[in-house]
Amino acid sequence: MNDAFARPPARRYDYERDPAAIYRQSFAIVRAEADLDRLPESLRDVAVRLIHACGEPDIVADLAWSDGAAEAAREALGQGAPILTDVKMVEYGIIRSRLAARNEVVCTLDDPRVADHAGDLATTRSAAAVDFWQDRLAGAVVAIGNAPTALFHLLERIAEGFPRPAVILGFPVGFVGAAESKQALSENPFSIPYLTLKGRRGGSAIAAAAVNALAAGLPEEGR
Amino acid sequence: MNDAFARPPARRYDYERDPAAIYRQSFAIVRAEADLDRLPESLRDVAVRLIHACGEPDIVADLAWSDGAAEAAREALGQGAPILTDVKMVEYGIIRSRLAARNEVVCTLDDPRVADHAGDLATTRSAAAVDFWQDRLAGAVVAIGNAPTALFHLLERIAEGFPRPAVILGFPVGFVGAAESKQALSENPFSIPYLTLKGRRGGSAIAAAAVNALAAGLPEEGR
Repeated sequence: MNDAFARPPARRYDYERDPAAIYRQSFAIVRAEADLDRLPESLRDVAVRLIHACGEPDIVADLAWSDGAAEAAREALGQGAPILTDVKMVEYGIIRSRLAARNEVVCTLDDPRVADHAGDLATTRSAAAVDFWQDRLAGAVVAIGNAPTALFHLLERIAEGFPRPAVILGFPVGFVGAAESKQALSENPFSIPYLTLKGRRGGSAIAAAAVNALAAGLPEEGR
Repeated sequence: MNDAFARPPARRYDYERDPAAIYRQSFAIVRAEADLDRLPESLRDVAVRLIHACGEPDIVADLAWSDGAAEAAREALGQGAPILTDVKMVEYGIIRSRLAARNEVVCTLDDPRVADHAGDLATTRSAAAVDFWQDRLAGAVVAIGNAPTALFHLLERIAEGFPRPAVILGFPVGFVGAAESKQALSENPFSIPYLTLKGRRGGSAIAAAAVNALAAGLPEEGR
């Protein structure tokens, strides 16, 4: 770095530079625009963070959850439950400093056994990777931010006797199976607590934001 | 893994399991629903992938670009230009197998010097991290998927003499500065090619999708 860049650039644009002010203003705008009244108190801060992650206050209308889902997630996270994710983007969106219990964050998608296992099962790598969660799944926090097939496969495995996670944060995104997988989650017959976003919207940023919100509320980190 | 899980689960749900079919169906739905006609031919495949990443065909109306931006990005990527990102989520969303030139993907946010530098400049860590791009910035592909301050800061540094990237893929998201930073990008007086999404929407998945699309078109990887 040149010495010249030890100084701030000349201000060409009028923008907020203070991280705490950015968070404060962002959350204030979200609270002003989003219809948080339809949510239980335990989910309002979570919804603020989900909206903050995608820029769309109207996702509130598509949120679906089971009673006590936020409490189940907070308790599991506080007790150090592992966090299981379908993609690296979710893994890297989780803010480690907010995991007071230093929870393990696991994405098995790149496990060298996954490609062959997907071939054996005639399914996607994302679905096959779920089978490698088995030893950590009991009481875990599952955060799915990309693949509908991972969520469907998990529900099918649980039906067959896979261990039960503490909560499923289900945010697959897209046009083929995403809405359907989240509908299946919201109708899961295993009484597994869940939080999800109906329809096509979702994604890794929202899934990570859900974990971050449930891990420690609404902090004001630098951004 | 138990032997029991060497077999596929019993099919409780009717969903597409074939990765190639999922991509094919997804892209077909996007092409049917999105108004791609308003885009130049060089950006239509890119737009399909951006929509695929967020589930929202209507983002097409908010896309903005400079003439030749896609060509500039494809040429830079093909020649091995480094890819500079503001957050790890973008870094991990870029599919390495699509980078035929084995481009370096760099996120400096976790550089140990960044926190102090942000304090010295009285700005965010995301903005301060941009200063550590300096040595790689000439001819680089910049992909910003989170922080408006990173994009504003980059434009201010370029005004002061920072090297010029080949293209800026600008997708900050959120309520404070995101729309304004993308407006500034689209009005940049440096003639730097750009692709951006006006308004509040954006994010790391869209930024990574832009790189992936410009790196190799529309493949059908496993998902």
